Formats: sequence, structure tokens, C-alpha cells
Amino acid sequence: MPRVYLTAAYDGTAYHGSALQAGEPQTIEAYLNRAIHGATGDETPVIGASRTDAGVHARGAVYVFDTASSIPPDRFVHVLNHLLPDDIRIIESHEVPADFHPRRCEAVKTYVYRVLNSPQPDPTRRLYTWHVPRPLDVNAMREAAATLVGEHDFTSFCNVDSTAETRVRTILRISVERSGSGALRDTHDDEIAISVTGNGFLYNMVRIIAGTLVQIGWGWRDASQMAEILSAKDRGAAGCTAPPQGLFLIGYEWITDDNGAIMVKI
Amino acid sequence: MPRVYLTAAYDGTAYHGSALQAGEPQTIEAYLNRAIHGATGDETPVIGASRTDAGVHARGAVYVFDTASSIPPDRFVHVLNHLLPDDIRIIESHEVPADFHPRRCEAVKTYVYRVLNSPQPDPTRRLYTWHVPRPLDVNAMREAAATLVGEHDFTSFCNVDSTAETRVRTILRISVERSGSGALRDTHDDEIAISVTGNGFLYNMVRIIAGTLVQIGWGWRDASQMAEILSAKDRGAAGCTAPPQGLFLIGYEWITDDNGAIMVKI
Repeated sequence: MPRVYLTAAYDGTAYHGSALQAGEPQTIEAYLNRAIHGATGDETPVIGASRTDAGVHARGAVYVFDTASSIPPDRFVHVLNHLLPDDIRIIESHEVPADFHPRRCEAVKTYVYRVLNSPQPDPTRRLYTWHVPRPLDVNAMREAAATLVGEHDFTSFCNVDSTAETRVRTILRISVERSGSGALRDTHDDEIAISVTGNGFLYNMVRIIAGTLVQIGWGWRDASQMAEILSAKDRGAAGCTAPPQGLFLIGYEWITDDNGAIMVKI
Repeated sequence: MPRVYLTAAYDGTAYHGSALQAGEPQTIEAYLNRAIHGATGDETPVIGASRTDAGVHARGAVYVFDTASSIPPDRFVHVLNHLLPDDIRIIESHEVPADFHPRRCEAVKTYVYRVLNSPQPDPTRRLYTWHVPRPLDVNAMREAAATLVGEHDFTSFCNVDSTAETRVRTILRISVERSGSGALRDTHDDEIAISVTGNGFLYNMVRIIAGTLVQIGWGWRDASQMAEILSAKDRGAAGCTAPPQGLFLIGYEWITDDNGAIMVKI
């Protein structure tokens, strides 16, 4: 039975998160399962590579599912888009080996957190940015962010309700850049994009990093304090959890061995 | 009785256009009137500088209203934002002379039309761009757009239901630029922004210009045909009306005389 890999983009505004929940029809996975059932008759649920909270968006979320259908795997992009609401779009689909499991394979994942840093709000970005009117010092944010690169115990940046066995994760890259609002930008750029790439993320980790960096950006804390916050291994040491609507799951890069095979987690 | 000038930004997605309509509570002006009534007790309706259709957005829409309230005019920005939904925001407020009427004064107005020109859709921009997957030739669009600059009879770019007495308008500037999607842009820019500045616009004029430029961009028509389309003075000669969600009213620039007074239309 072929295993199909889906890359999905969604606007998380209308959903109670991505993961299937009993009795909750309004999740990304519930919609994917219903669309796959409509196309194939199959009842096997999708396996998601990760989950996002209510209001969080994705450009490159990854799902796999098994199907006995005769639909060619690369046609599911078209078939499913006819059955999905327009705030969930399949970007591409292809076959993967039957033993590919997205949560058991080595991957590098990238998130972007968008801050609208302008005195005025923008209603058309209210669902896609965190509006912080006070001017932020991007250099201080960048200096603090650099402290987080590498393998660390990220307990300070983990929601206390997390059930993760270990809080050690590796951040490979983190950048803080001023960035425009696209076609409508004026002469200056009014957004700050915090981009974080790592091998795994704890519950609310990127949002707590963003909340802490914004506190540093407005001068409430100094950039040099980031090292103490990290070594405290205490959620209370870090800043607030930034609101969900600024967070975008950008995508996955699967780690392959010398033969090009995707590596399985040990 | 002071006259108060409001600059407003809104996300037009949830509204049946900006203008007040009998029996239709879901318009921008209806919400402004209810907020002003809530703050002041006044029943006098706002006067809008122009109207936008359902689904069209604004960054710098202009309204005036008269009030006997003791609220200082520049405080209305805060007072009204507490009473308005979060998809309508007042950007600033100030007093203007009692005889300032925004539709009787000389102004230059700018609109931007956003096209998402990428093979893949983006759910988080579905309400703010027109998605055209086929690659567009920006140079051809720019060449065609240049034909429209100046004073012309824009009948070809006017909805046939328009009641305008004259279809002569002046386009001062028009630009067609590739532009990024803000913080999330990749190495390439995936939007095309059509920016049009003029002294007045006919019903659907910017959207018909955008629809025609997109037809030229994908090669269905040649850039040189724009002159014929314009001189035909026939709506049937131009392209489709681009969908509303790509259109943004950016703002007004009031024309003043040598003494700094805003000029009244003759």
C-alpha cells in the first residue's frame, strides 16, 4: 500500500490547532482526514510531522498517509485541494517508502515569528503578526538570539505543561531581520522576522524565544541576560509567550545519509 | 461644532463595502457611526472621502464628522479604537475647518493592487492578493501601464453600471513592481504590486486596469494593445475586473494652494 507524503500550507486562524482531537472537528488533521476519505474511501488517519497550536500558520507542514486508492500519489495535490477549504492548501504530494515516518526521521525544521513593529496597527496583518508599537532594537535582539545557537537545555523556553522527556535541543541558525510588509511597504520596513532553525522544538519554544527577544528589543532586559535566562533552566526566567498568530511553520529539511536515504532517529 | 478628520485602516473581508447602505449593518461607515454615537451620543453620520467595494481593504481611508462632544479631536483615535472591532482601526484623528468636505476637495489618491504570482497558493494571503499561478512578464505590464498615465477618457476601464457624468480622469503615476511577501519571502519575490495614483477613479477602475495588465503579463495580449483598449472607450475592450481582495486604498494627499489651504474642486 503506497505511503503518500503531503506538504500543506494553512491559515491557522479558524482552527483549534493542527492535531486531531477527539470531539473537535475544527483541526487541520480532521479536515485532511475527511478530504482523504472523500477522495479514496480510506479511513486511515494522516500522520503529522509535528503539531501547531490554534492560530499558528504553516507554509510547509508535512503529513503522510497510506492508501489503497488507484490515484497516483502526485495527483493528490489536485484531488485533495478540491475537497479542502481554501485556508488549507496542499502544495505538493509524492510517494515515500512505506517505512518513512515523519516523527521518527531526522529533520531540520524552520519557524518564522513575525512582529509588526510600527506605531500604527494594520488590520490586514492582525492575524499574521504580533503588533508591538514600541520601537525595538534589532541589534540587541540579534545579539541575544546568538546566545541560543547550539545544543542547550531549553527548559527556560518550554511551556511548563510539556511532557518532553529531555529539554535538550539544538538550534542551528537564528536570525532577526527587519523586513517589509510586501507590496505595501513604504520606504521603511515595518516588520521584524525572527527565523529559527533547529532539530526539534519544545512546546511553545519559538513563541517564548520571540517573547523574550521582544522584551530585550524594547530595552526591558539587556541582551547579555539571555545567557542567564538559558542557564536558569526555569520557565519563569524567560519572557512572555508571544501570541500564536505571528508564528509560521516554514518547512522541513530531511537529513539523509551518504546514500541519500533519510536518516531514522536513534 | 468642531469637524473631526479620521484616517482609518480596515480589513474589508468581513464587510459589505465601506459605504452606508439602508438595512445593512455590516459596512465600515455603519461601524464608524455606531462607535462615534457610543463615544459622543451624536447621531450625525460620517462623510467618507470615497467608497470601497466588499472585500477591498484600506490603509488610509478618510472620514470626517461633526461633534459637539468635549473629547479633544486628536483623542478620537484612542476613544474610537476601544469601540471598534479589531479589523477597523483609526490611525489618527485631528480637527479640520468646518467647511472641509473630503469629496469636494482636490486630492491625489493612491491604490495598490497585489498579485500573488507564484505556482503555489498561500492560504495566509488568500484574502489580500489575487493568486495568478502563471508567470507574468512584469516588463510588458509596465510598458502597457505607462500608456495610461495622463488625462484620458477611461470608459474602457469603468464598470458599465457607473453613473459618473464624465469618464475623464488623470493618472499621475502608475508602477508595476515585483515585491516580496514580507518577513516570509524566500530569495525571490513572489508578489507583483500595481500602484496607481490619480486625481479620481471610476467605479472598478483600478481592478479593471489590474485585470487587463495581468492579461498582458501572461501574454494573452500584447503591451502595445493598451493604447487601442484605452481609445476604444468600451468596457468590452479591456480585460476582466480583478477580484476585490487584492485592492488596497493606500491614502490621500490633499492639494493645497500657495497659502497652504486645501483646494476646493471647481
